[in-house]
Amino acid sequence: MSDHSHDTPHEGAGTLAEFRQFRERMNKEILDEGNLVVNRFFALDGRAYEEGALDVKTKELLGLVASLVLRCDDCITYHVVRSREEGVSRAEFFETLSVGLVVGGSITIPHLRRAVARWSELETT
Amino acid sequence: MSDHSHDTPHEGAGTLAEFRQFRERMNKEILDEGNLVVNRFFALDGRAYEEGALDVKTKELLGLVASLVLRCDDCITYHVVRSREEGVSRAEFFETLSVGLVVGGSITIPHLRRAVARWSELETT
Amino acid sequence: MSDHSHDTPHEGAGTLAEFRQFRERMNKEILDEGNLVVNRFFALDGRAYEEGALDVKTKELLGLVASLVLRCDDCITYHVVRSREEGVSRAEFFETLSVGLVVGGSITIPHLRRAVARWSELETT
Amino acid sequence: MSDHSHDTPHEGAGTLAEFRQFRERMNKEILDEGNLVVNRFFALDGRAYEEGALDVKTKELLGLVASLVLRCDDCITYHVVRSREEGVSRAEFFETLSVGLVVGGSITIPHLRRAVARWSELETT
Amino acid sequence: MSDHSHDTPHEGAGTLAEFRQFRERMNKEILDEGNLVVNRFFALDGRAYEEGALDVKTKELLGLVASLVLRCDDCITYHVVRSREEGVSRAEFFETLSVGLVVGGSITIPHLRRAVARWSELETT
Amino acid sequence: MSDHSHDTPHEGAGTLAEFRQFRERMNKEILDEGNLVVNRFFALDGRAYEEGALDVKTKELLGLVASLVLRCDDCITYHVVRSREEGVSRAEFFETLSVGLVVGGSITIPHLRRAVARWSELETT
Repeated sequence: MSDHSHDTPHEGAGTLAEFRQFRERMNKEILDEGNLVVNRFFALDGRAYEEGALDVKTKELLGLVASLVLRCDDCITYHVVRSREEGVSRAEFFETLSVGLVVGGSITIPHLRRAVARWSELETT
Repeated sequence: MSDHSHDTPHEGAGTLAEFRQFRERMNKEILDEGNLVVNRFFALDGRAYEEGALDVKTKELLGLVASLVLRCDDCITYHVVRSREEGVSRAEFFETLSVGLVVGGSITIPHLRRAVARWSELETT
Repeated sequence: MSDHSHDTPHEGAGTLAEFRQFRERMNKEILDEGNLVVNRFFALDGRAYEEGALDVKTKELLGLVASLVLRCDDCITYHVVRSREEGVSRAEFFETLSVGLVVGGSITIPHLRRAVARWSELETT
Repeated sequence: MSDHSHDTPHEGAGTLAEFRQFRERMNKEILDEGNLVVNRFFALDGRAYEEGALDVKTKELLGLVASLVLRCDDCITYHVVRSREEGVSRAEFFETLSVGLVVGGSITIPHLRRAVARWSELETT
Repeated sequence: MSDHSHDTPHEGAGTLAEFRQFRERMNKEILDEGNLVVNRFFALDGRAYEEGALDVKTKELLGLVASLVLRCDDCITYHVVRSREEGVSRAEFFETLSVGLVVGGSITIPHLRRAVARWSELETT
Repeated sequence: MSDHSHDTPHEGAGTLAEFRQFRERMNKEILDEGNLVVNRFFALDGRAYEEGALDVKTKELLGLVASLVLRCDDCITYHVVRSREEGVSRAEFFETLSVGLVVGGSITIPHLRRAVARWSELETT
């Protein structure tokens, strides 16, 4: 397909729209199961990024760097989207990635590439 | 493709049939190489889940939770299939995932989504 | 001290009594801080191992194998103690470790040694 | 020694003074070896936390959460010390830990305990 | 597509050509950003594999086994390509994988399958 | 004890003699249990480093770098001892560490310090 690279920022991943659709569909299916521990964890996951002594933007950067060093592409995508919503600049984004890169080493580079591709994808939409 | 979501439970993964086909083809190629250490490891991997002091079902749940906290999608897929063959219920499956989620944290959530998607895919086939 | 090896099952770790004392002291200090997310997580951590579709003993084995493959000595110690309280036999304990060893590889061996040392320490007390 | 618990905040770790002494001695021995890649990495490690688009305090919190989810006690100790030097409050410290706890799961708890013990050790010195 | 399996050695991954294209495009975008720490890290990553006390071939095998136990498919692909360029034989390749398999356990097997698929893909081109 | 630093190269670790003693005692206790999977794994762990297409020295370096990036101090200690027995030079040792440092990032540094301390401890005995 000639414009394949416009739809998918990298091999093996879907578009952001596909990511969101799958994420929402599965979150619903998981929460509908009614497992108490799972459902409380999902609620807690949301609370962890709410404003407190630290502002939301800083917490998103914490989530981003943690996701990068643990090499979780879906987590990175989520925090890239949220970071942009919180007004993180491209320079702040790259500095956050640079800390993760030094802490986590060259094995984070493939994830760093995909993180930057997601960021650029969002800049053009 | 309009019914794409019916074939693939999530972005970036093939169908269960494709997973099995690739797995079998590569296992054959690997074992045919005749590397003693590799071949013995593959044999041992099978032995670890055989009945002993613990029954096979419990061992599959151990394999499933270990695969979830180590975030290995292919390993999860394998143990989801085997768990169902051993009569694990959907509630037992979710409780096993819930232990892995608390132990391993929110970075396991993308893998938990795919595990549930695989389980549901198998329920409908 | 001449009988040092009787008190501590391995280099770099304290006795079980020291582990418990530090754990309790710090848990109190952490919970007293009143951070909502941390406190809810600690509560959830307890809930994850309560009886449900799976019995408590099976959940402790799930916690044990997850702790082994993630190589968390303190977590292993905790689940070794709890497994014994739930009536896990030495053979069941070793089979659980054997699954973790095959899944997680030889890097789990130092933790496997310490897990067995803890188990034997508890057998003699 | 009767007041052992005053010197060492947890089992298996030395005092902060011992940590610093070993760290400095080994850093010197490592850098004196003259391996180009190693020495450049050590220099880069320092640069990563310098002020840029993000201030030093935020970068220390990024280093702290990355160290927690990767479960590196020595790295945590270093960033706890630096965070305090940069004026991080106890509430900000706990919120940073809370993000790491949710992202990384209960296996981070032993490291969270030691992080808090280090923080409290520093408050009293 | 009828001959899809000939183009992609496994589910969820692109062809080697797609990998290279994405890698080059993103490396350029990342380096063009001009973040000092990131750019120096990328330069250092190249230096680490240059000839020194150890020859380049041995260093590529070190990079390969490290990538396998850390389960980084893109890193593995890179070192598979480089290993072949340095004259690594198929038997040496499998022995390197066998060490990683024993050290890292059965969770490395999906990555081992993809590593062998990449090697075989290169043998036929 | 006044010469404590001569006995133990770093905080929280015993001497090399204590490491060996604990390792041998626990290996015996583990193998005596007679768990088939565990015992075969231990045998396989030995086979992985035997001469084949690659010589023993190269395999020890593979084991060393894998242990460093996975941050397993006991595994590192074992491969440091074996590397010296196989005639690895200090420069080759540092180059192997340098690859692991770049691949695994700054979180490997505490383990790199302890690896170098072990090496130097062995040079003086």
